[in-house]
Amino acid sequence: MKRAVITMGDPAGVGPEISLKALLSEEKLRNETIIAGSEGILRHAHQTLQAEIPLHVIEQPEDFQPGAINILDVLPLDYQTIAIGKVSEIAGDAAYRYLERAIGLAMEGRTGPVVTAPLNKEALHKGGHHYDGHTEIFATLTGTKSYTMMLWSELMSVVHVSTHTSLRNACDRVKIERVLDCIRLGHQAMKKLGVSHPKIAAAGLNPHSGEAGLFGTEDRDEIRPAVEQAIAEGIDCEGPVPPDTVFLKATQKQYDLVVAMYHDQGHIPMKLLAFDSGVNVTLGLPIIRTSVDHGTAFDIAGKGIAREESMLWAIRLANRFANHAS
Amino acid sequence: MKRAVITMGDPAGVGPEISLKALLSEEKLRNETIIAGSEGILRHAHQTLQAEIPLHVIEQPEDFQPGAINILDVLPLDYQTIAIGKVSEIAGDAAYRYLERAIGLAMEGRTGPVVTAPLNKEALHKGGHHYDGHTEIFATLTGTKSYTMMLWSELMSVVHVSTHTSLRNACDRVKIERVLDCIRLGHQAMKKLGVSHPKIAAAGLNPHSGEAGLFGTEDRDEIRPAVEQAIAEGIDCEGPVPPDTVFLKATQKQYDLVVAMYHDQGHIPMKLLAFDSGVNVTLGLPIIRTSVDHGTAFDIAGKGIAREESMLWAIRLANRFANHAS
Repeated sequence: MKRAVITMGDPAGVGPEISLKALLSEEKLRNETIIAGSEGILRHAHQTLQAEIPLHVIEQPEDFQPGAINILDVLPLDYQTIAIGKVSEIAGDAAYRYLERAIGLAMEGRTGPVVTAPLNKEALHKGGHHYDGHTEIFATLTGTKSYTMMLWSELMSVVHVSTHTSLRNACDRVKIERVLDCIRLGHQAMKKLGVSHPKIAAAGLNPHSGEAGLFGTEDRDEIRPAVEQAIAEGIDCEGPVPPDTVFLKATQKQYDLVVAMYHDQGHIPMKLLAFDSGVNVTLGLPIIRTSVDHGTAFDIAGKGIAREESMLWAIRLANRFANHAS
Repeated sequence: MKRAVITMGDPAGVGPEISLKALLSEEKLRNETIIAGSEGILRHAHQTLQAEIPLHVIEQPEDFQPGAINILDVLPLDYQTIAIGKVSEIAGDAAYRYLERAIGLAMEGRTGPVVTAPLNKEALHKGGHHYDGHTEIFATLTGTKSYTMMLWSELMSVVHVSTHTSLRNACDRVKIERVLDCIRLGHQAMKKLGVSHPKIAAAGLNPHSGEAGLFGTEDRDEIRPAVEQAIAEGIDCEGPVPPDTVFLKATQKQYDLVVAMYHDQGHIPMKLLAFDSGVNVTLGLPIIRTSVDHGTAFDIAGKGIAREESMLWAIRLANRFANHAS
């Protein structure tokens, strides 16, 4: 199996410390994973954490040395040049460079999954990279048109028909083809995760799934035909299932995956049920990409107190995908 | 304190049995509560439940007799004339008649809160009563213009800017005046429930509360000004709070109440967290009205197996409101 690469995210956020903490905590993961980042920042975090396992800087992933925490020093940055907990151009640009390197290596087949620590969008934009976030960077750098955001947890998983757009636009994006794409992508992902016969629910868009057109027509005219087509393709799929009970049913194991029609429909239940252990996965890319399900947490950055649980789950899930794919 | 009246809901659903079960289980509630319904149906449910505490039919609430389960026989109906678990015109009309009687008595000040068991909307319409549901019947029969649906549980409470309308219409209804009304109604309700200094969050409408107008403008242009006005009126209110974390924060007791911008924004977290113990309350009426937070459950009706937990909470909460109001 090819080694995963963690991109350490915005250097001013909690990314560097949670990346280190995750690899410090599990020897197996340490020997399977590289951090793409800046040595100066990681050394400082290493000191803050009073870690004993050494850092080892490598030029190429092939130089990996077991027993240490291996670092690709993508962009040399001193701890002093970054204001921890602050938005900056230099940090935003750095976060992008780590990604560019990690995605490039994965596309060349030299490394495996990319696991991303959080970046700050404002800093990213200041750094000259005008993307909505990680997902759009991955889609662009890998030339991917059809993709979806999955939130995964051991309790429940959700893919999203749309994410970072207004709720009005989100309604417009509920179209047969897009809903069907999300069902297919979710179905493939579940199979890759070892679910032999995934059971999928497409959530409704409107209250009570529109009550036969009384509260909106998308459930009947867009979601239902997409579900029927998915069933015709052999996918075990139901829907539209009323939004206010579909997630409860998923936690009761009636479904392996829910297709959510907009950002908050999926994010509200996932954040409630799996705040610390959720993993964000981009489905549809030619490479595997998972991510922590939280932000840069500037308020606690640099203190060594950020929790690495979501990062650990992100690495584990990436490896699970990779094991199945290989 | 005036006695509460339970309306037994659609006679073909679980309403009759959960109404009886609730009053059978607690002597104190039994001596404070009347069931408005049909004697024939309730007698049959009483037999199914093999209940020992007798039923006592009264003509007027003033005839109440402690020690029994008191029934206002609003509309004589035989068990044989109703097909349990089926939609029917006669059952839909009956459900409406119970409400009409209970609301009338409460408006005359002869009884206290009205606690509603579930009705079936299709049956209601077949019975000639073209309302969206209970709430609209209460608003019409009490002449109320400004009201909102609160879902209450011990863990978290939510009021809704809109409920039974399409998601597109729900976006249109997010207006300063309406959001402010909901904040005010929620604030009053929390005070009536004994929270001396309620802390209220207005949820955002768009993902991340619109990210400064990038994903929709309602958060900035409608919700924020409503929150500012509420603060100016002395209400402890925050918002717009990003929708995907506001409910988590509420469960962590950062807020006593969340103002949700649309039906599923509030219903998804409430159904996940309090499926059996949620209570539906209509705020803004001149009388107190609470309701179970589930439907007629035609699939299990008449079997005596429906759970009375939500009904018990609905009665308790109604009495809590009544105690504070008096």
